[in-house]
Amino acid sequence: SVNKFLHDVFDTVLEDVLKKSTSAASKVIDFLPPEELSKRIDLELRDDPEPHESLLDHCKKTIQHSVKTGHPMFLNQLYQGMDPYGLAGQFVSDSLNTNLHTFEAAPVFVLMEQEVVRKVCSLIGWPAGDGLMGAGGSMLNMFGINLARHKYFPDLKKTGMHGGPRLVLLTSAESHYSMTKGAGFLGIGTDNVIKVKCDERGQMLPEELDRAIEDAKSQGSVPFCVNATSGTTVTGGYDPLGAIADVCQKHRLWLHVDAAWGGSVLTSRKHRGLMAGVERADSLLWNPHKMLSLPLQCSVFVTREQGLLKAAHASGATYLFQKDKISYDASYDVGDKSIQCGRKTDPMKFWLSWKAHGTRGFEQHVDYVFELAQYLYDKLLSRKDFKMVLPGPNCTNVCFWYIPPSLQGMPEGPEFTKKLDQVAPVIKDRMTKNGNMMVQYQPLDGVPNFFRLVLANTETTRQDLDFFVEEIERLGADL
Amino acid sequence: SVNKFLHDVFDTVLEDVLKKSTSAASKVIDFLPPEELSKRIDLELRDDPEPHESLLDHCKKTIQHSVKTGHPMFLNQLYQGMDPYGLAGQFVSDSLNTNLHTFEAAPVFVLMEQEVVRKVCSLIGWPAGDGLMGAGGSMLNMFGINLARHKYFPDLKKTGMHGGPRLVLLTSAESHYSMTKGAGFLGIGTDNVIKVKCDERGQMLPEELDRAIEDAKSQGSVPFCVNATSGTTVTGGYDPLGAIADVCQKHRLWLHVDAAWGGSVLTSRKHRGLMAGVERADSLLWNPHKMLSLPLQCSVFVTREQGLLKAAHASGATYLFQKDKISYDASYDVGDKSIQCGRKTDPMKFWLSWKAHGTRGFEQHVDYVFELAQYLYDKLLSRKDFKMVLPGPNCTNVCFWYIPPSLQGMPEGPEFTKKLDQVAPVIKDRMTKNGNMMVQYQPLDGVPNFFRLVLANTETTRQDLDFFVEEIERLGADL
Repeated sequence: SVNKFLHDVFDTVLEDVLKKSTSAASKVIDFLPPEELSKRIDLELRDDPEPHESLLDHCKKTIQHSVKTGHPMFLNQLYQGMDPYGLAGQFVSDSLNTNLHTFEAAPVFVLMEQEVVRKVCSLIGWPAGDGLMGAGGSMLNMFGINLARHKYFPDLKKTGMHGGPRLVLLTSAESHYSMTKGAGFLGIGTDNVIKVKCDERGQMLPEELDRAIEDAKSQGSVPFCVNATSGTTVTGGYDPLGAIADVCQKHRLWLHVDAAWGGSVLTSRKHRGLMAGVERADSLLWNPHKMLSLPLQCSVFVTREQGLLKAAHASGATYLFQKDKISYDASYDVGDKSIQCGRKTDPMKFWLSWKAHGTRGFEQHVDYVFELAQYLYDKLLSRKDFKMVLPGPNCTNVCFWYIPPSLQGMPEGPEFTKKLDQVAPVIKDRMTKNGNMMVQYQPLDGVPNFFRLVLANTETTRQDLDFFVEEIERLGADL
Repeated sequence: SVNKFLHDVFDTVLEDVLKKSTSAASKVIDFLPPEELSKRIDLELRDDPEPHESLLDHCKKTIQHSVKTGHPMFLNQLYQGMDPYGLAGQFVSDSLNTNLHTFEAAPVFVLMEQEVVRKVCSLIGWPAGDGLMGAGGSMLNMFGINLARHKYFPDLKKTGMHGGPRLVLLTSAESHYSMTKGAGFLGIGTDNVIKVKCDERGQMLPEELDRAIEDAKSQGSVPFCVNATSGTTVTGGYDPLGAIADVCQKHRLWLHVDAAWGGSVLTSRKHRGLMAGVERADSLLWNPHKMLSLPLQCSVFVTREQGLLKAAHASGATYLFQKDKISYDASYDVGDKSIQCGRKTDPMKFWLSWKAHGTRGFEQHVDYVFELAQYLYDKLLSRKDFKMVLPGPNCTNVCFWYIPPSLQGMPEGPEFTKKLDQVAPVIKDRMTKNGNMMVQYQPLDGVPNFFRLVLANTETTRQDLDFFVEEIERLGADL
């Protein structure tokens, strides 16, 4: 029966994903290149149905050849681990399968979202605010940009930008690519994103921001929004929010904070100083699906200015947002705050996880992964075959080069750089085929490919990191 | 243990959501207004953790007071029912918790998405195409608009719209509000959305479209995109795609088809004629989470023009889309086609459901709900206390007024209209408090509030609809 099939799938998930995949003894990935994977799984969609047996087999093979992002050695991306309470909350809300547009359709979830928003505002230090959850950081960063635009140029929503001024948006050179992508999508234009210089840790220089604003103005452009990043994607830099807020105040610009990655420090009394001044932001985006290991997508957008989300986004569809409802006050119909009509009911996973851990549980987790990062940084720094990219760990990002035997002692210069650039891709390829760990590499501002490892999984231990270091050395020993 | 907790939650979901909620004997909604619901569930998020017992209780109360969208009498929204295979696929992909940006992070899901896109293109009648899944119809309708903009004005992505022409977008008066919302968000401006007149069934008049384009041109505006709707939200109208494609061809405009609701007829040999000419579209959006009862969100966007999604949206982040990958061809890294960075792995739910039902299973379902709509339409038409809004059912939308005893025989006029306008909200309120069925009402173009019932759940029977009619009469007998 279908019920038995669902039970079988659930058991498979519990055993093969949630249990096995958190053990370092299993593989992070049983990798097959696209051509081979296509043959291994019978992908073709056909006219006729397939039996349960075959469907279950598809599920098992999917699990086998997928990346286990909950594995302690999955250090590749900013999303890691799997909070079981978050998963439980997600499963309840997904099986109820409704939509966060009206109280009528999602009464409990609308109230949970309110509470999540209230609590996030209070972590920031705002007495009140407005907000919502949405489909990821890139989209919600666009909400920040669009709110800024609507705040200062409310007519543009109606008239469009074609007859308006040349609006420019400022963000750091190390900020997330969604700023540029968003500017293109929103009709602002990618050329109108000004990239402000950073210090050696990837943190925006406020005096450079001030200068860039003055420059833009002197060229006839109209700055309207500054994006500051709390936890840059690559280096984990935290822009100095207080000093940036001063600049924004001076020029009367909207301050949006992209805290997608680093926002989780707000729960930690030890580390929240990294975001000192955050209460002066006008809007903020935070992805608890990153450092807090909640299921994707768990993204929260908040703004200090109440009513602006609705003003900027609403279109007031009469079929959905009836004004003559009798059972409840129509202000609980929150859908028009978003640019989505149908919106997944993400609040419960975050809400249930918060209930299960308490803010103090989140804090413990954040403090733990920060300690792990320091441990790894110190360990790599002490070894002659590793070289660090940054002076100290930023957030929980650890960026480093492995210097293979043939390059040790070689003088730095174009030849060294060229050779070093090839090391990470080769080790990454060997690591992928091995399947026992995953870590990301990348180039940055002309420096050769380096590894960026991030720590976010509560299951990752110091011993795992010791193994990681030895394994990199083993994989690169002949290079 | 956490494992036991997950099991308990799963059992609760199986019993309370998937089993009970599909029985007409249970309530669709155990409704409490916001103030009372806030008291019933302990919403507050605190510093300290709560025990499993209390968390499970939260889950049970959430289920109790949520809308059961899989219930046979939930006839309120375009999403109904719950396909168990879709849910199984969603649960596997959600527990693996990865992201559809690179092959590295989501190897199996990238291939599944390819296959889903290929199959949807083939249903449309395209030999090939490009596409992706995304966070709902509103967002993916914006993709259609943005692709049109990028096709004809590729520089605007860089320069922004402030110095460009006054672009205008044409769509029908009955089309979804995401067109207007999208135009505001994308910097085109809501004033630059031209609403084309419809016939009495809510279907766009091609000659009116042609005239509107000529008018816009004569006023110095630049039409660039036409949106046609296959299955309008309220009346279920299908715009005549062939005739609209002729107009688009004449004026060299992009044709986007919003088939969010009605696209499922593509699987039915009997009903796909409603979308005759669809193969001439440039892009199309379809939400199988609507008529096919897949879990939210299951939204597919496809375009005939390969490469344009990437050209319009890409920003080429080096930390994610490395070009020097060794293990596989970087063209499998599909993330830059989207404006999202993190993107939920939605393909598997659709893929597994398609495997389980086959295209023929989808067809049977579509044919069944169309038959139900005809049955209900005929039944209501034959009764003197109901009045139909449209000449025949459109798609599976059935729009009608209930004429209570006090209004029967009253001559139509302002007094009648005013009184009739108040009937639906009162019956809706009583229905909500009763909790045994849910159906939407709304005003339209100055006509008084009427009921819009939609059929999409394979569990809904003719007997349920008989009960529905009697219940409306019972609830309105004293009006």
